[in-house]
Amino acid sequence: MIVVVRNSAPEDKLKELIQMLEGCGVTLNVSVGTQSTVLGLLGDTSAIDADLVAAQDIVETVKRVQEPYKKANRKFHPENTVVNASGPEIGARKIAVIAGPCSVESEEQIIEVAQRVKAAGACFLRGGAFKPRTSPYSFQGLKAEGLELLKIARKETGLPIVTEIMSTEHLSLFEDVDIIQVGARNMQNFELLKELGKLDKPILLKRGLASTIEEFLMSAEYIMSGGNEKVILCERGIRTFETFTRNTLDISAVPVLKRLSHLPVVIDPSHAAGLPWLVEPLSKAAIAVGADGLMIEVHNNPKKALSDGAQSLTPDQFDIIMSKLKKYAELEEREI
Amino acid sequence: MIVVVRNSAPEDKLKELIQMLEGCGVTLNVSVGTQSTVLGLLGDTSAIDADLVAAQDIVETVKRVQEPYKKANRKFHPENTVVNASGPEIGARKIAVIAGPCSVESEEQIIEVAQRVKAAGACFLRGGAFKPRTSPYSFQGLKAEGLELLKIARKETGLPIVTEIMSTEHLSLFEDVDIIQVGARNMQNFELLKELGKLDKPILLKRGLASTIEEFLMSAEYIMSGGNEKVILCERGIRTFETFTRNTLDISAVPVLKRLSHLPVVIDPSHAAGLPWLVEPLSKAAIAVGADGLMIEVHNNPKKALSDGAQSLTPDQFDIIMSKLKKYAELEEREI
Amino acid sequence: MIVVVRNSAPEDKLKELIQMLEGCGVTLNVSVGTQSTVLGLLGDTSAIDADLVAAQDIVETVKRVQEPYKKANRKFHPENTVVNASGPEIGARKIAVIAGPCSVESEEQIIEVAQRVKAAGACFLRGGAFKPRTSPYSFQGLKAEGLELLKIARKETGLPIVTEIMSTEHLSLFEDVDIIQVGARNMQNFELLKELGKLDKPILLKRGLASTIEEFLMSAEYIMSGGNEKVILCERGIRTFETFTRNTLDISAVPVLKRLSHLPVVIDPSHAAGLPWLVEPLSKAAIAVGADGLMIEVHNNPKKALSDGAQSLTPDQFDIIMSKLKKYAELEEREI
Amino acid sequence: MIVVVRNSAPEDKLKELIQMLEGCGVTLNVSVGTQSTVLGLLGDTSAIDADLVAAQDIVETVKRVQEPYKKANRKFHPENTVVNASGPEIGARKIAVIAGPCSVESEEQIIEVAQRVKAAGACFLRGGAFKPRTSPYSFQGLKAEGLELLKIARKETGLPIVTEIMSTEHLSLFEDVDIIQVGARNMQNFELLKELGKLDKPILLKRGLASTIEEFLMSAEYIMSGGNEKVILCERGIRTFETFTRNTLDISAVPVLKRLSHLPVVIDPSHAAGLPWLVEPLSKAAIAVGADGLMIEVHNNPKKALSDGAQSLTPDQFDIIMSKLKKYAELEEREI
Repeated sequence: MIVVVRNSAPEDKLKELIQMLEGCGVTLNVSVGTQSTVLGLLGDTSAIDADLVAAQDIVETVKRVQEPYKKANRKFHPENTVVNASGPEIGARKIAVIAGPCSVESEEQIIEVAQRVKAAGACFLRGGAFKPRTSPYSFQGLKAEGLELLKIARKETGLPIVTEIMSTEHLSLFEDVDIIQVGARNMQNFELLKELGKLDKPILLKRGLASTIEEFLMSAEYIMSGGNEKVILCERGIRTFETFTRNTLDISAVPVLKRLSHLPVVIDPSHAAGLPWLVEPLSKAAIAVGADGLMIEVHNNPKKALSDGAQSLTPDQFDIIMSKLKKYAELEEREI
Repeated sequence: MIVVVRNSAPEDKLKELIQMLEGCGVTLNVSVGTQSTVLGLLGDTSAIDADLVAAQDIVETVKRVQEPYKKANRKFHPENTVVNASGPEIGARKIAVIAGPCSVESEEQIIEVAQRVKAAGACFLRGGAFKPRTSPYSFQGLKAEGLELLKIARKETGLPIVTEIMSTEHLSLFEDVDIIQVGARNMQNFELLKELGKLDKPILLKRGLASTIEEFLMSAEYIMSGGNEKVILCERGIRTFETFTRNTLDISAVPVLKRLSHLPVVIDPSHAAGLPWLVEPLSKAAIAVGADGLMIEVHNNPKKALSDGAQSLTPDQFDIIMSKLKKYAELEEREI
Repeated sequence: MIVVVRNSAPEDKLKELIQMLEGCGVTLNVSVGTQSTVLGLLGDTSAIDADLVAAQDIVETVKRVQEPYKKANRKFHPENTVVNASGPEIGARKIAVIAGPCSVESEEQIIEVAQRVKAAGACFLRGGAFKPRTSPYSFQGLKAEGLELLKIARKETGLPIVTEIMSTEHLSLFEDVDIIQVGARNMQNFELLKELGKLDKPILLKRGLASTIEEFLMSAEYIMSGGNEKVILCERGIRTFETFTRNTLDISAVPVLKRLSHLPVVIDPSHAAGLPWLVEPLSKAAIAVGADGLMIEVHNNPKKALSDGAQSLTPDQFDIIMSKLKKYAELEEREI
Repeated sequence: MIVVVRNSAPEDKLKELIQMLEGCGVTLNVSVGTQSTVLGLLGDTSAIDADLVAAQDIVETVKRVQEPYKKANRKFHPENTVVNASGPEIGARKIAVIAGPCSVESEEQIIEVAQRVKAAGACFLRGGAFKPRTSPYSFQGLKAEGLELLKIARKETGLPIVTEIMSTEHLSLFEDVDIIQVGARNMQNFELLKELGKLDKPILLKRGLASTIEEFLMSAEYIMSGGNEKVILCERGIRTFETFTRNTLDISAVPVLKRLSHLPVVIDPSHAAGLPWLVEPLSKAAIAVGADGLMIEVHNNPKKALSDGAQSLTPDQFDIIMSKLKKYAELEEREI
């Protein structure tokens, strides 16, 4: 952290500031210039509140040099983290494909989709039981019953299941879920993150609609600092001024996240675009930039889907895309 | 809702679509053109999933005409809603000023601040007990103890208290709170909104960082559709590309929200800007555009604040601002 | 400027970097820490290319401390600049109201509007002769003829005229214009800015749709560094994810610009919102935050306007607003 | 276009509106509902000003159904446009790689870079002679001399040249340039676009920092409506709230633009990211989503580049990337 002090600062005020900073356990290098005095803080500055320092009268500006995240930081953990989720791994050579409907709707539906996506090469089944819908008048998911149907589909196909949690109150229902998903709207639901940090279970954390990469990693840090280091990051599009696509997929986020962090990174092309014909090109791009997995919506009857049908692929479309993606995976010396 | 169908659509597919839409209880007007056929849906379309309609092959585009919110909609409730919060009202002639520290830190602090802001004309005391912090290593608030300190300050000053809830699990702790605040990061924590909808208590709902005005009103609708119509909307800055201010205060949101909805609207200039010297001009602007209240951070010692000190005013600064704001309130035929 | 060097940097590379920086005429303070070495650059760093420094292998990060603008910077010019534009001033006690139609359409129209806005208290007449339209198929303005009509209206009313230039090739046509406007889309048309810098004539520079405050001031710097210091800044809304309003008025930009710079700042509430019923509240807010002027679209027949009729006020509406604004100006110890 | 009229509209006002619309040469379908009356406009609505229609008192809302661009629209020109630029084509099977330094700095530099990029497989040489720099104090390019050096490098290597124009006044200097580039900041410099529309020369049009896809295509339409249909679209990153990368590459824009338009689409991964280590993954992604070309910054000595050195590749790095990209091109049944 670097603190720039106005050159007009009285001697005693500067001394006071220096003592306050040293009290936080860091070492200081002081460079006195003609226009300003620069304090270089060396050591662990993660506990120092930059805003508080900036609030001091004599301080002109404060700049962080160090990343505020530790456990998620590749600097302190150079090797890639591989998350094992009830068998299949995420972050290893094989690119993990998580597929299934937006919402679980019935036993027939979820089993049919599970069988089809498994046959096409998916290694996880996704399906929403608790659904975060913008409108209270929209279908809110089958809830506990939906979770049971997912488990039945898992039994039928052997595919581990991924499903979204929306409240700490439902935690007990998720005990037998293989990967718990945190949706974009809950990325900074810190109470939920803290509870998930106490589990020994993979967490798929989606990036918030307007969250910076640093905030995204800080939310991962919330889970990890609680003891659960099995975090999978998921880029799913950010909100921008462009309205043709539902969100703007930040494809650069994959190589950036993998450089800053050791955690596996997955892309959700279905939610990013909101348009089924964009799933194929965005999935190829995801593999090309080094994503460790894909999360794709597949519905046996998208036109009758109770939620987000507009962006779902049919199982036949998914088959075709999967066969194309295999070659992209090979180019990256991976498999799918 | 208007549905535009491709002119190449086969007769039977179009018939099927029309039946599906009529099955939702709306009346249709069909205009057949040379390039496309336009279906005008008349009646209550709030239960129709526009994305699902758009997913049909023959549909070119779907446009909503009607707002998706009902209880929050001024069309169905032309008069302003006035929320009575343990005495003082929000949405009536008097502009409600909610002031206090970002975090409750100690009994002395909260009582001192409460007395000072009351003397200056505030009618509510704010203070965070549960704090949503980006970093798990930052001060997280005094939690239950903080709530107790707020109640002590209320007893001392008579000011009703406003404080933020972060999880449905803490609901029982908030029984004796006068206004429960939902933070920007939880604006779409739908499980929380649903629970708050069951209470008979004012809810101050902050706009999410990247939430549209329509999404904001839909979150209010979540609370209201549960039965609790005592919702106060709070604009607190949105996230844009500009980084000089922490967020960009969307001042236009006040007149827009008041036109679309009957709910009272409050501005939080402290969080919007993140800079204490912007609180005065932004507060004046808030009154000038018709805000029903202001939420201002005041700390007895901003330089030692455990959170967000950088943006807090001192009680002396708050005194000066309040005296200036009175004249702005008068111009709008209100008082403060 | 602060340069953070990796602690793994070899001695000779560090020496080389230090020599390169000293070669740019700045003094260096070097603080050697355990994790990194911090170089504090003191002196005039405006000629140093931060990106180039960051491109050096051994550099971890570069942070600017100093603002890159000089002539526009209040630090080097503490008093407010007052721009005299053929009589009326902008930046002095009187708040300058610039009003008129989006496009000049006919002699009758522009004279009628000019007389009406003058009667209501406007001190400048605006009107577009060259129109930047998104579509090549939309009305592009009366061009040279429009400029002549503006001059006729000026003769009739005595109001100095403000109109937009779109190309350096039209410069000779603008010789007799009182204030030349640079539109948002041309804020970074640097060739145009350079030419305007050679004139001795007030320039009203609009902020680009996605321009930061710093970029905005750098564009003013382009004009000023050429010798023309008569620059008036105009905030007219920025592009965000919100679509209810055409743009999002960044009301905070006024006090921020006035703190960073000595140049006068004007608000254009008509373009910011794109909705005529928002002009009144946004104009009040503009005065409340300290704007030196307002730019308001007024058309004698908005429903038949050839461009942007949707956001124009009628002369009658303008009368009412002006009478209300007077009281706001008084509160700020100004007049209108 | 669909116009929704309030049900409270008086009969005569509605009649008047219908006559006004029919006067624009479109056919109307009128559906009278209980809450509102829907007018469906059929025929060519591109000349109708939607804002003007919305300004009528009785109109509740106006929605465009038809795209406002015609010549750029794939609907009216189903086959891909292939632009021949002095030999090499853009938009055909071969993916066009345009490489070179941000700025032309010297004869030695530009020839060396040209030879190296040619050897690696580039088919165009890029280099800036007129440079749009945020600061007036930064290097502004060698201008006319830079253009001469580019021509020398072309003579030495046979590579056609691509370089940016910043003003209509320089047009005569660009007569012998193979592809004229319009930078992001000039995407809506309509006077420039109109002049370029009169040429018979390929124009590489970069997307503006905050321009929607529709606005981007409307700028292409400006050039095309003038008669020059040789337009190449270039996505180069948009401005969002994320600051880790300089801009956010909107990778989805490629398949979207290719669906909406027949024009070739190129990606500039260097400017999009501003970080050299992102050029490789983003280039792969560009090919994977169907881009027709890449525009990559290569400098023989990035650390001494006079502009944008921070994001340039060395020729050696470019060699490696090109060899990797060949395989991606093959997967898409293209070559590089």
